Amino acid sequence: MKLLLKNVVLDGKEQSISIENGMISAIAPALPQDNTEIFDAHGKLAVLPPFYNAHNHAAMTLLRGYAEDMELFDWLSNHIWPVEAKLTAEDIYIGTKLAIMEMIRSGTVYFNDSYWHPEAALKAVQETGIRATLGLLYLGDISDDAKSANAALIEAAKDVDTVTVSHTPHAIYTVDKPTLQKIAEMMKSDGRKVHIHVSETAKEVADCLKEHGVTPVEYLDSLGLINDRAMLAHCVHLTDHDREIISDRGAYIAHNPVSNMKLCSGMFNFEAARKAGCKVAIGTDGTSSNNNLSMIDEMKVAALTAKMTASIPTAGRTADIFHAATAIGAEFAGVKAGKIAPGYAADMLLVKLDHPVMSANYDLIADMVYAASPEVIDSVICNGKFLMKNNVIPEEAETVAAAKEVCQKIASWQ
Amino acid sequence: MKLLLKNVVLDGKEQSISIENGMISAIAPALPQDNTEIFDAHGKLAVLPPFYNAHNHAAMTLLRGYAEDMELFDWLSNHIWPVEAKLTAEDIYIGTKLAIMEMIRSGTVYFNDSYWHPEAALKAVQETGIRATLGLLYLGDISDDAKSANAALIEAAKDVDTVTVSHTPHAIYTVDKPTLQKIAEMMKSDGRKVHIHVSETAKEVADCLKEHGVTPVEYLDSLGLINDRAMLAHCVHLTDHDREIISDRGAYIAHNPVSNMKLCSGMFNFEAARKAGCKVAIGTDGTSSNNNLSMIDEMKVAALTAKMTASIPTAGRTADIFHAATAIGAEFAGVKAGKIAPGYAADMLLVKLDHPVMSANYDLIADMVYAASPEVIDSVICNGKFLMKNNVIPEEAETVAAAKEVCQKIASWQ
Repeated sequence: MKLLLKNVVLDGKEQSISIENGMISAIAPALPQDNTEIFDAHGKLAVLPPFYNAHNHAAMTLLRGYAEDMELFDWLSNHIWPVEAKLTAEDIYIGTKLAIMEMIRSGTVYFNDSYWHPEAALKAVQETGIRATLGLLYLGDISDDAKSANAALIEAAKDVDTVTVSHTPHAIYTVDKPTLQKIAEMMKSDGRKVHIHVSETAKEVADCLKEHGVTPVEYLDSLGLINDRAMLAHCVHLTDHDREIISDRGAYIAHNPVSNMKLCSGMFNFEAARKAGCKVAIGTDGTSSNNNLSMIDEMKVAALTAKMTASIPTAGRTADIFHAATAIGAEFAGVKAGKIAPGYAADMLLVKLDHPVMSANYDLIADMVYAASPEVIDSVICNGKFLMKNNVIPEEAETVAAAKEVCQKIASWQ
Repeated sequence: MKLLLKNVVLDGKEQSISIENGMISAIAPALPQDNTEIFDAHGKLAVLPPFYNAHNHAAMTLLRGYAEDMELFDWLSNHIWPVEAKLTAEDIYIGTKLAIMEMIRSGTVYFNDSYWHPEAALKAVQETGIRATLGLLYLGDISDDAKSANAALIEAAKDVDTVTVSHTPHAIYTVDKPTLQKIAEMMKSDGRKVHIHVSETAKEVADCLKEHGVTPVEYLDSLGLINDRAMLAHCVHLTDHDREIISDRGAYIAHNPVSNMKLCSGMFNFEAARKAGCKVAIGTDGTSSNNNLSMIDEMKVAALTAKMTASIPTAGRTADIFHAATAIGAEFAGVKAGKIAPGYAADMLLVKLDHPVMSANYDLIADMVYAASPEVIDSVICNGKFLMKNNVIPEEAETVAAAKEVCQKIASWQ
């Protein structure tokens, strides 16, 4: 099946875009219309690359707003963890599907996930058509339960071409050294990615220095886990040497500015990482510490914190922030995207130019980074298929209704 | 004309709300339906107080994204000021009307404005039914042009019950001492408010200390301008003594966290001001330094910066942030609002509980502060009338079309 987009605005000009087999096959002012589904934008929708969310715990949508304004340890141990322990695989399927509805609505076509029951998340991913990297679980040594969940994920994901499976050890302070070493060993042969929280808090760095005599990045590098398939989430507290290692190894940073501020973890120095040559992607983290999955919100806060940490308004340029939220995340996902051109994946947003915040249109990228909200997005295409068409997402109402039931159950546990 | 809202969700329960003469007259599970316009929310919309934007330069929507990522002086002198000098009263009418469309769509029913040609802004305010405080202009001594614009504003505004006229000297470094003294003198008899930028940058404070030997707040206090009708915009760099003065005098602070970060002005300490007893409202500033007028974005960044500046996640509580964005701004505006109860102004939002980000619904206020976007707002009521009903705002398409023409003219000046 071919898809033809007509009269979409690309770089200020009206164009037709032809899509075949999930790829952009041609772009021209006019293209043949045979054997195709036609979508006419009437010159009112601009086409842009969509977002790739580099760090998420998607099913935490079930806990959005559940416990606010608390000290971290009280929040985790008395509120979040006790609820998480009771969530079933079915709950997590529903929570992940709710997250996907929100991600699609805000222009995201990929998320890098780490959460319980990834095999349940996979079902939601497959039903919706979004791209994802889902994580194999490790906590301490690998338990039998985790082993069987991991085996189920590997088995179920192997024929899904929009899904990859990664190793997701939580962090250096929750996963022991032998397990981390085993993961590094497995990565040599299995070709998988790794996704881990690194240097999120000052305490984590101080504890690591005390225990291992090196920073968390240096420690993970010594174990072989800083490489070009690694997504290092947070990286708030980096030394120049840390940035040098990350840059040299070609590893990726998932920058989560909202979560870092909400949990008082600190502010990541975007310009320092960029100048050191690190590949910085952007993620939302889970909704408990954000509290949404909007990459538009995240870009705005990323730009603002980049300026504040560098103390100059020329830092955190809109083009760099948008590139981080799109092309860099896509590169980690293994998708040739972040650009609307023939030969690139047919992943795209169609954005309303007649929305009040988009109407000046001097600088479309600046408008997306600073002014937009999910409301400006009309349609989302992923792998050549519509995830949202003219603001309609299949199964959204049913998913919200199912999620409300799970949340009412959770509320009854209080 | 009476308006009856049926089956709206208030504090978790379905209620009817009766509105007469711009006020909430009754709230009960069922109310008489005679002689009324009826709006049925079918139990799917929650009612909340709307937003009061404490500091704005509305017509700068015409310059949204016009010049990004620049040093402040380059930005102002080479880009913003030359364009502003060429804007006509008609342009400013259109730019203000575009701003009002965006404000309504994001749940705002009042803005405190300071911009050229306030008499043109008034026309947009009247046509849309939004509330506003519009400012009399002062730069140096009052020029003849400014005098005639000011006279026109006073004359045109006198019969508009949703509009007040304030004195808006720009700042202590652009308006001389005799003019500031004259304004303080006028305020004793004319009952007007005053709206001024104060302690926005470290340089402003340093220059004031050098020239006057006191801080900007102390200087303005010595002139009689720190009082309970004063809105002090920014206040990024305050001393304990400044906060004490502001609190003692009952003056208001307009906190603009996005603009302060974007321009690298610094981060306002919300908790310190709150603890000192200052009345902190929230504003977006103009779209050139934000770049939108969404009080939802502003609340999120206000909460995040409150936590970061206090270094504890229990700072910037959602209830305090929401109160700042609603009740405190309304109090300055002279509107009894910020609460949905009989005897309060009929200003309200109807918010979609079946939107993905609102569906968990453990904590509606936290969801509004952290998770929401303008997309969750279904309807906006101001002074008893719908500004937006089921996502439709009168004249929105025409306003966007007119604004696009002005922006194309501005682009042609480059």
